[in-house]
Amino acid sequence: MALNALQKQEVDSLSETFPTRRPVVESLEEKLYTPQKVLDHGFVRIIDYMGDDTAIVQAARVSYGKGTKQTSQDRGLIRYLMRHRHSTPFEMCEIKFHIKLPIFIARQWIRHRTANVNEYSARYSILSKEFYMPEPAQLGTQSKSNNQGRANVLQGAEAARVFELLKEDAERCYSHYEEMLNETADGNVIDENRQGLARELARMNLTMNMYTEWYWKIDLHNLFHFLSLRADSHAQYEIRAYADVMLEMVKEWVPYAYEAFEEYRLHGAHLSRTGIEIVSRALKGEKITQENSGLTPREWRELAALLPLEN
Amino acid sequence: MALNALQKQEVDSLSETFPTRRPVVESLEEKLYTPQKVLDHGFVRIIDYMGDDTAIVQAARVSYGKGTKQTSQDRGLIRYLMRHRHSTPFEMCEIKFHIKLPIFIARQWIRHRTANVNEYSARYSILSKEFYMPEPAQLGTQSKSNNQGRANVLQGAEAARVFELLKEDAERCYSHYEEMLNETADGNVIDENRQGLARELARMNLTMNMYTEWYWKIDLHNLFHFLSLRADSHAQYEIRAYADVMLEMVKEWVPYAYEAFEEYRLHGAHLSRTGIEIVSRALKGEKITQENSGLTPREWRELAALLPLEN
Amino acid sequence: MALNALQKQEVDSLSETFPTRRPVVESLEEKLYTPQKVLDHGFVRIIDYMGDDTAIVQAARVSYGKGTKQTSQDRGLIRYLMRHRHSTPFEMCEIKFHIKLPIFIARQWIRHRTANVNEYSARYSILSKEFYMPEPAQLGTQSKSNNQGRANVLQGAEAARVFELLKEDAERCYSHYEEMLNETADGNVIDENRQGLARELARMNLTMNMYTEWYWKIDLHNLFHFLSLRADSHAQYEIRAYADVMLEMVKEWVPYAYEAFEEYRLHGAHLSRTGIEIVSRALKGEKITQENSGLTPREWRELAALLPLEN
Amino acid sequence: MALNALQKQEVDSLSETFPTRRPVVESLEEKLYTPQKVLDHGFVRIIDYMGDDTAIVQAARVSYGKGTKQTSQDRGLIRYLMRHRHSTPFEMCEIKFHIKLPIFIARQWIRHRTANVNEYSARYSILSKEFYMPEPAQLGTQSKSNNQGRANVLQGAEAARVFELLKEDAERCYSHYEEMLNETADGNVIDENRQGLARELARMNLTMNMYTEWYWKIDLHNLFHFLSLRADSHAQYEIRAYADVMLEMVKEWVPYAYEAFEEYRLHGAHLSRTGIEIVSRALKGEKITQENSGLTPREWRELAALLPLEN
Repeated sequence: MALNALQKQEVDSLSETFPTRRPVVESLEEKLYTPQKVLDHGFVRIIDYMGDDTAIVQAARVSYGKGTKQTSQDRGLIRYLMRHRHSTPFEMCEIKFHIKLPIFIARQWIRHRTANVNEYSARYSILSKEFYMPEPAQLGTQSKSNNQGRANVLQGAEAARVFELLKEDAERCYSHYEEMLNETADGNVIDENRQGLARELARMNLTMNMYTEWYWKIDLHNLFHFLSLRADSHAQYEIRAYADVMLEMVKEWVPYAYEAFEEYRLHGAHLSRTGIEIVSRALKGEKITQENSGLTPREWRELAALLPLEN
Repeated sequence: MALNALQKQEVDSLSETFPTRRPVVESLEEKLYTPQKVLDHGFVRIIDYMGDDTAIVQAARVSYGKGTKQTSQDRGLIRYLMRHRHSTPFEMCEIKFHIKLPIFIARQWIRHRTANVNEYSARYSILSKEFYMPEPAQLGTQSKSNNQGRANVLQGAEAARVFELLKEDAERCYSHYEEMLNETADGNVIDENRQGLARELARMNLTMNMYTEWYWKIDLHNLFHFLSLRADSHAQYEIRAYADVMLEMVKEWVPYAYEAFEEYRLHGAHLSRTGIEIVSRALKGEKITQENSGLTPREWRELAALLPLEN
Repeated sequence: MALNALQKQEVDSLSETFPTRRPVVESLEEKLYTPQKVLDHGFVRIIDYMGDDTAIVQAARVSYGKGTKQTSQDRGLIRYLMRHRHSTPFEMCEIKFHIKLPIFIARQWIRHRTANVNEYSARYSILSKEFYMPEPAQLGTQSKSNNQGRANVLQGAEAARVFELLKEDAERCYSHYEEMLNETADGNVIDENRQGLARELARMNLTMNMYTEWYWKIDLHNLFHFLSLRADSHAQYEIRAYADVMLEMVKEWVPYAYEAFEEYRLHGAHLSRTGIEIVSRALKGEKITQENSGLTPREWRELAALLPLEN
Repeated sequence: MALNALQKQEVDSLSETFPTRRPVVESLEEKLYTPQKVLDHGFVRIIDYMGDDTAIVQAARVSYGKGTKQTSQDRGLIRYLMRHRHSTPFEMCEIKFHIKLPIFIARQWIRHRTANVNEYSARYSILSKEFYMPEPAQLGTQSKSNNQGRANVLQGAEAARVFELLKEDAERCYSHYEEMLNETADGNVIDENRQGLARELARMNLTMNMYTEWYWKIDLHNLFHFLSLRADSHAQYEIRAYADVMLEMVKEWVPYAYEAFEEYRLHGAHLSRTGIEIVSRALKGEKITQENSGLTPREWRELAALLPLEN
């Protein structure tokens, strides 16, 4: 998970403070630049942020013009905005992360198009020899019911064989990457008589559990959208691990907005038109079953998991 | 151009400084929150910013990994990025403005879709009685050669009549707006026996030179794109007036990036394939005219205005 | 609501058909180009479309690779995608509208940034003399409880006065617009001895109920987002009138996707974490009141309007 | 490069034509759905398109209102729009591709955020055993002068060793992928006594030259931007191979727009402020050298490569 030497030097140099008239979130300042470990070699760290809870309120109030209220009502206003999906005031806060993550997770992550990204370029530089190895508890078997999910945890010989293959293949591919480049990760030429393959080509030999890193900058509204999808129990464990760390950071940064996000989105749920009808019938005392619900068995299971309809 | 009472109070309260470990641009700090006048009642002021020239360099260098260079090379790197249109590092800086502008200009401005916006809502609140009146020197006549442009300046009786009409119509429409609302801008009910039209409807009676205001937040790459279009001589004077003020602010904020923007984009020019051929022929000593250039008269005029081809 | 002469000619010429191998929605073809009236002078018409329900399914199935299923399951798959907010397959359909609408509504509309837009330019051309006058039934009074809404309908003398003011002001401003331009809407010079103000300036004298028009192109996912906000009962009547017409068009275009949109989004509802707890308690037989609900009075009213909690 | 069986069946079924009133590009219709081979196993094929050259003109003319001109002037108008970077009319055309490409190229490609994408999901399905092997002529050595580029072509034993490594590693990793899944690409269980690792995990063992595929939909303006970057000589050969094929497709689709794109962007060039000054001085007869140019050696080389300044 280590930062490289240069990044460490940067963190140190940045312990110095400067006066600013911009909004400052004191408790976040302490955590700036410091990497939070994720998975085996990954991390998330905050590089910069713009705005805080009051920036959301300020933006909402420009819309409301003269009808500006007291600070004591900030929390209520933020909850109102979140509840009614008035998203633009949340766009007024911005945050920039430095993230180190496995490439197969980076490929999921990048599908969120509303962020600014600068990624380490393996066209330009040599990738470090760091690859993701799951912890034993994360070695899930393929779920039969959910094509995108995991079921049990692999055990015994089968698990051991998986670890062996992942490790050997990543190491062998990396070693051949260096051989093709004719250069080690440290920048030493291997054989003076060879020319070395272009970096933009040699990288294709690496496995997808290699780590990459990027700067990733996003506004709070779009970050909440990302987190609502990636902190969800249906998200792949490896990306959820990042989302979970980021949730804590956001909580520190904009506590009112975070609280509203938890209440109305992260732990809320959506009812369909039929779902509303069913719950209404149940509240009026009707006994509802899948058969008389009008829902497919699958939708019925989803609704029954949310609310005690079969009481 | 005045801020309202609340905004003034905000500026005062914000003279206080707080320590931060984030990048701080000292010379910009002094100018935070202070409105720069534009047109007769408009303004631009910076509310917040994220990053500085070093943030651009930092983002570029994550791409280049271990190949990080010395700070002394920052200027050169930024110029390289701008010249080769590597735009993503510029997206790592963000700025937030508070802008007051006439509605017909706001309608042009909002066409730039890559910004975050919160506008004063005339559905919710009553618009102030402030409308744009051009200065006499800006009262351009319709250009015959350019359907989108101005030619001379209106003079004498014709100019006087225009000022009279603009003023009378804006004032009358505003006065009727209050009458329909049954409420003055100060919030006083006009006639206890009337109900008043909904604000979301009454606003349709206002003329398009009324002022509105908004928070507008954008990253540096997209801001440069906006400025390259709106600080251009073909842009309408009234939006150019805002762009000109913002150019100065950007220069203060990210001096290296601004310098590169001026050199490579704002004062640069694009040559077409035929344009390159013509200039090459001319440099080799050939006498080029519109007739032998292969360009239309219009394109020839554009190129001849840029370079002394007819020497 | 009339198309201009040129547009009419275009509609006629386009009655011709051509063979294509692309997906064709037969029932939509008949309606192409034909304007559907909205408000007094506005319209919406479909100019082009790309894809249909099967394009959504096709895109979803590329994700699922070899696991492709039978066409009979298309409807179920589309419902699954909508229910679980898998939005990218819906982005594979695209539609292009030609819309004529009042400027104060266009200002709301344009806040949706994910569409492509080309608007009639009053910098370049003279706007037609067409302005929106509400129907008597739409002349709402300002709501006291909702700053953004309407309450009753204005009656009698107060209503009559509003109509008079709206009409007179729009007409007078338009007439002065022509006078300043020194040109009528038909292109006739008014006074040979005057020069005429530039169009880009004269337009500022017009009132915001003037009609404008634009081409507006958007993908189905973002169109659903737009419609869920603008066909909502909290949206201003004048924009809802457009949304309602567009809902019918979308229903014709992609019937399965539309049905799923209605079920899961348009007529669905969101429960907060506390809302889920309350409904669970009520389903278990507990008597819930605002006081013991943990909700603010406002949130309680919203929930009680959705579900019969007070039974 | 083969389509799978299902895709082939689809192409056949789609030879049928249907009548439409939408714009149809006859010569493109013949090519719909048919894959154009790229690299060893990749392809690009057009799945759908919306609009043609006349759609660009139509959108531009709504801006110009009544000033509509004759069809004979379409070409000139499109050239004007391209020259002056009026980009919105080009956004009115949309195209949808189905593309099969190596994953390390997909990672570059996806950085263009303004497109709609649905990618084959290796969380859900098993990836086919297809990986990219460069042709011998493409086996570039690392450039010393350009960190992102290739210099010579590897020869003899060193080249042979690269091919051997790429092939062996890709095959071994794939074989172990199947072993971990406990399932072959054909869907056969390998060992009834094992459970098999989840697909979302096993995929991390694959090398980055594996092929993936996606639907990719984009408007013409953003496609031109993509092509101007990716058909450029500085782009990596493997992505340029796709861009080159797509250029031909766009030429067929919107011939006027394509011609203008070639003239003004693809084969045009940008001059900096200093560049304009230098060329002006040279045209006036001054002898310009790097030393008196005011340019860095690198910028001087770039300019001298464009124009015969050293004549």
